[in-house]
Amino acid sequence: MSKSQAFALILAGGGGTRLWPASRRSRPKQLLALGGAESLIAATFGRVSRVLGRERTLVVTAADQVAAIRRALPELPAENLVAEPAARNTGPAVGLGALAAAHRAGDDVRLAVIPSDAFIADEAEYGRVLTVALEHAAEAIVTVGIKPTRPETGYGYLQRGTPVREGVYEVARFVEKPDGATAARYLAAGDYLWNSGMFFFTARRLLDEAAAHMPDLAAILAEIRASADAAATANARYPAAPNISIDYGIMEKVSGIRVVPGDFGWNDVGSWSALADIRPQDGAGNVAIGDVVMSDVAGSVVVAEPGAPLVGVVGVDGLVVVATKDAVLVVPKARAQEVRAVVDALAASRRNELL
Amino acid sequence: MSKSQAFALILAGGGGTRLWPASRRSRPKQLLALGGAESLIAATFGRVSRVLGRERTLVVTAADQVAAIRRALPELPAENLVAEPAARNTGPAVGLGALAAAHRAGDDVRLAVIPSDAFIADEAEYGRVLTVALEHAAEAIVTVGIKPTRPETGYGYLQRGTPVREGVYEVARFVEKPDGATAARYLAAGDYLWNSGMFFFTARRLLDEAAAHMPDLAAILAEIRASADAAATANARYPAAPNISIDYGIMEKVSGIRVVPGDFGWNDVGSWSALADIRPQDGAGNVAIGDVVMSDVAGSVVVAEPGAPLVGVVGVDGLVVVATKDAVLVVPKARAQEVRAVVDALAASRRNELL
Repeated sequence: MSKSQAFALILAGGGGTRLWPASRRSRPKQLLALGGAESLIAATFGRVSRVLGRERTLVVTAADQVAAIRRALPELPAENLVAEPAARNTGPAVGLGALAAAHRAGDDVRLAVIPSDAFIADEAEYGRVLTVALEHAAEAIVTVGIKPTRPETGYGYLQRGTPVREGVYEVARFVEKPDGATAARYLAAGDYLWNSGMFFFTARRLLDEAAAHMPDLAAILAEIRASADAAATANARYPAAPNISIDYGIMEKVSGIRVVPGDFGWNDVGSWSALADIRPQDGAGNVAIGDVVMSDVAGSVVVAEPGAPLVGVVGVDGLVVVATKDAVLVVPKARAQEVRAVVDALAASRRNELL
Repeated sequence: MSKSQAFALILAGGGGTRLWPASRRSRPKQLLALGGAESLIAATFGRVSRVLGRERTLVVTAADQVAAIRRALPELPAENLVAEPAARNTGPAVGLGALAAAHRAGDDVRLAVIPSDAFIADEAEYGRVLTVALEHAAEAIVTVGIKPTRPETGYGYLQRGTPVREGVYEVARFVEKPDGATAARYLAAGDYLWNSGMFFFTARRLLDEAAAHMPDLAAILAEIRASADAAATANARYPAAPNISIDYGIMEKVSGIRVVPGDFGWNDVGSWSALADIRPQDGAGNVAIGDVVMSDVAGSVVVAEPGAPLVGVVGVDGLVVVATKDAVLVVPKARAQEVRAVVDALAASRRNELL
């Protein structure tokens, strides 16, 4: 198909509190080694750069996370780190990344937009799906949809429609996070896929769609692009960009999007309970990480980070216990999303050192 | 009744792991402020010395706890601290304390043997019961039995028999910690009392009973007493004393013991679940101590010691969570006694810094 170059835009701007107390404002989820030895972003960078080449793998992050990202990715070429002057949502971040790629390789450059904070079990299949999606990116906006394995209520879904060719479909519609009954129906129906947040298109197409659906953003991007001092203009104008995701700002408003279904052990690691799906379990279904002692414990996730107190757990089932040096979380696995209640309380009492 | 002097022997030799991770080998339960502002032993010393006078309140402890006890009891006269050369059980400790009291006030001195690590809610009633028990101590061995308020399986019991006079009974028998059904039967029967571990007798009677039932101990005590250098003899001979409790070594073998029933909010604080009985609860039945954030939590005991991480708990019922600087415990309240499983595992892996 297209002979244009392909670049990856790894999006690493996220904050997020769902993995508190390990994740903090200054240490977002993508910097955590939730999958094992390396951080999620280092694993993502490795996987993506093995497909596209290190020189064509860009990372977009907020200015205040630049130092941490550089430490996490020593192999990232310095010029491949695109810093948002202020943290905005994925819509503006993708726009800024698209300008950087187009500057190097022209507007027909194909882009793979990749979240930095997902876990992937099967890298070979992932690489295959990425390659197929990029092949279509010259002629359409493409996404990757994950074959669901459970009635997950924490993810967005998309419904696939007409086949375009073997293994590629039109997207019939995007849908928001469903309730439990709806998620069960989606799983049974067979034609619903999890929204992976990966998108593929040319820089030209992205900028065109921004002009149509996010004109405020498009105007700012055009100013930056036209400026003799793009960095100064970005510093001055980017903070005014709308705080809108690329899903909501563009993808849900465009028709003719295609989806490549993928099945490569993808996990968004959206809460501590997800560790039970991506890490080895003992015979009683527990995931234990760090300095942990358990007695008669089943189906639980128990984590003691380096520097944390030892964690001793006795006689519980389905519990999450996470200890860091300065905070401990205890919550049932089925309610792990509710860590927000603690974070909100700490924010309300201005315990910024714990956020 | 008797005009002889009365001395208290507060027994502070205990180690114990039931309050781990707050209690450690170097910081046994009696040094913890489980009842509130002051340590259990400081509260005990205050209560007892207000009845008997500070000069007549002795504390018996193991040599390696002397420094910690002095820090906890700045008002204890220096000469009133009786140090066991090596930690033995309550049988030898009472014997050593009895020698010290007899040395000052003769063999007819009446002794109140008081554990250092119980919580008492009603000091006035406690003082009344102590006074009644001491009145009888010249003519009999006396104990205080606590009116049970629940079918507790963690305490020993005694059955009261024939009344001696108003509020004083013969002890029919001592019984070990019962199972749940037996404890329920004891509670319903009305004539069973909790064994408080408080005993009252003269020094002469104690030494006579030791000679009859713990002859090895009695021989060692006699050697110490006869020596020109009692301290040196104690150092040489006391470590050979049998490691036997006064309950098992003497009380369960003697007949004619009397009991004064007491009802003064006594609690042995035998596990973390007991905190729910002695500390104020919030509207959902929780006891929260220290830097704690809770959301939708009921019937739980959540403790963050000074220097510990913040503890955030969401969506649990009947759970114990205790954090110290270097260890965290999570266990259902109903299984709080099983903290031993963690302590045993740490001991097996020689994690002495956590014991």
